[in-house]
Amino acid sequence: MTPPTTPYLLTPGPLTTSPETKAAMLNDWGSWDDDFNQVTADVRAQLLAMADAADSEFACVPMQGSGTFAVESALACAVAPHGKALVLMNGAYGKRAAQLLHMMGRRYVTLDKGDYLPPQPDEVDALLHQDPEISAVFLVHCETSSGILNPLEAIAEVVHAHGKTLIVDAMSSFGGVPLSLSKTPIDVLISSANKCIEGVPGFGFVIIRRELLDAGEGRAHSLSLDLHAQWAYMERTGQWRFTPPTHTVVAFQAALAQHRAEGGVAGRCARYTQNRDALVAGMRALGFATLLEDRWLSPIITTFLSPDDPAFAFRDFYAALKARGFLIYPGKLTEVDSFRIGCIGQLDVAVIDTLLLAIQDALSEMGVSISPHLSTHLSPQAWSA
Amino acid sequence: MTPPTTPYLLTPGPLTTSPETKAAMLNDWGSWDDDFNQVTADVRAQLLAMADAADSEFACVPMQGSGTFAVESALACAVAPHGKALVLMNGAYGKRAAQLLHMMGRRYVTLDKGDYLPPQPDEVDALLHQDPEISAVFLVHCETSSGILNPLEAIAEVVHAHGKTLIVDAMSSFGGVPLSLSKTPIDVLISSANKCIEGVPGFGFVIIRRELLDAGEGRAHSLSLDLHAQWAYMERTGQWRFTPPTHTVVAFQAALAQHRAEGGVAGRCARYTQNRDALVAGMRALGFATLLEDRWLSPIITTFLSPDDPAFAFRDFYAALKARGFLIYPGKLTEVDSFRIGCIGQLDVAVIDTLLLAIQDALSEMGVSISPHLSTHLSPQAWSA
Repeated sequence: MTPPTTPYLLTPGPLTTSPETKAAMLNDWGSWDDDFNQVTADVRAQLLAMADAADSEFACVPMQGSGTFAVESALACAVAPHGKALVLMNGAYGKRAAQLLHMMGRRYVTLDKGDYLPPQPDEVDALLHQDPEISAVFLVHCETSSGILNPLEAIAEVVHAHGKTLIVDAMSSFGGVPLSLSKTPIDVLISSANKCIEGVPGFGFVIIRRELLDAGEGRAHSLSLDLHAQWAYMERTGQWRFTPPTHTVVAFQAALAQHRAEGGVAGRCARYTQNRDALVAGMRALGFATLLEDRWLSPIITTFLSPDDPAFAFRDFYAALKARGFLIYPGKLTEVDSFRIGCIGQLDVAVIDTLLLAIQDALSEMGVSISPHLSTHLSPQAWSA
Repeated sequence: MTPPTTPYLLTPGPLTTSPETKAAMLNDWGSWDDDFNQVTADVRAQLLAMADAADSEFACVPMQGSGTFAVESALACAVAPHGKALVLMNGAYGKRAAQLLHMMGRRYVTLDKGDYLPPQPDEVDALLHQDPEISAVFLVHCETSSGILNPLEAIAEVVHAHGKTLIVDAMSSFGGVPLSLSKTPIDVLISSANKCIEGVPGFGFVIIRRELLDAGEGRAHSLSLDLHAQWAYMERTGQWRFTPPTHTVVAFQAALAQHRAEGGVAGRCARYTQNRDALVAGMRALGFATLLEDRWLSPIITTFLSPDDPAFAFRDFYAALKARGFLIYPGKLTEVDSFRIGCIGQLDVAVIDTLLLAIQDALSEMGVSISPHLSTHLSPQAWSA
């Protein structure tokens, strides 16, 4: 990996992108010109192919803004005003989906598993049996609040067996964790430019069954976030309905080419998994404990429990690592002190090894000691699934 | 001006940006890191200063997405659910504001002046007298559909005299046309990164009276486009509420530095005006007529009537100019065939001179002849104001 001129971003995105991806932003593009329309068409087709989604059944619709903008547009389109959604929550992004539905006045119920427990297929099954009004289920694939990879395939089978719509927030996993819409019954999948495909931030995208898109016409609560209208305009003109983030889109096309060259999702998943394994092994060797058992660890981001040595303060730890060229991520758990380190972006095991040395150095500077006792005390978790 | 590697964009944005602005995107930034928060704070403060808006009275709130996303968030915040808006329309962007209000279920009336006639202060005065329920007036400063610069200052005085809120879409004019919120009573001003400040597209911003922002709490129809929530989060944390387009924001900061170096709004307005004057004089010398009389021409974009020689087809003209390194803009009038040429972005009179040669060359290649008769026939316009 080429060392960046800025610190490595060890986060769930925005992340460290390649020099080639950023260099693709050195030209200006006419947002209604054929050359740019071809970039948009190519990106949409490549995303469908990456999802293993047949063009006859699915469409890919990009949406300006952050990932939340794309989730809002997808929920507005795919959850009928007379329908009801079941939102599976185990972190900030499940909660945000419920908040979005609340804001747009759609009916929903939730299954809230707290900070990090995975929703279980049999729980979903029971809820769908109990409440036949539920028309759609929302699941976050990788909930970066904890770093858990939720049991998507098993839940998808349950939702499909009930004949309900499954909406998956695959923001931080798509492109980095294998997923096939031909094999796994998913109806709506949402992700963003600046995650595992390693683009820069500025837009998200929704891969959605064409029949859901059709049904979503006229249903949006917002003009800007009207997914059906965006799609219909794009189909008719080749252009985005409102000004697209041209440079970001072109950078994303460059990132897609690099994704292919690395062996696609499988290649990227292999690198991210190596990053995570090196990170987790190295952190455990330093005495840190992971929040989650190994089987729930995603190759995206890992939550580590903060040592209880009073000399450890996240703010100082962050600053010490920043001074050494690494930006880590604060924790997002309500009950325990924690921090997160991402495995995605232009990072490899050599970078992780350097990070581990920087962490050791930072702890020593801070005068923090982590006892093996502490590590045993905090892990494994007292829950099973 | 450094020649770009891509065609010049002669449009109302996205436009041709400088190499320095694009080069600012060659680093990655942590969207929650202090370094990036400082960029955001600096950009917000510079925009307030550019608008001559006192920090004690106004706040600047950036919003992800295209300019329309920012307009939607501003209308949702500034038009009370029990209020009523008067939308002044003379082109696509006035119409879009009405569409936005319709979509979010807010009450509004319109004054529709058609394709290019300016709304007049006395008409606004009469409407405000007639309908005391009107609480807010919406005006597009430069309506790029025709290129007209609407009489903002005079209308602002009328709206202020009635004690109503004035919301100005200054998308394509802010930073290029002088405007002072200390001198002109404007309550809400909306613009975007990729217009006269010459950034790349990816976000817009709203400069809004603090009391209107306070009143807008809990009023939004959309989570992503909740202007008050974006502001409150930004004030509390220094961060954008959802992932910002980091590279675009940093490029915008670079563009602001160049804007200052050029002499601020006055300097930029001078260059754009020179561009327009050279363009209009050159086009008239070639036999083209402008849609508008000189006094209504903005320094942003000019609409030219298509010659009625059957050999002239916009598609061919566009392609011939693209082959010569220039992208022009299609017309947006409903009644007459026209096309538009922008004067903003990294262009100067030397570029305009080259463009005029390219146009002459393209017309000759297409076998189009423009008679002086035609030009006389089409101009001046049969309306006065």
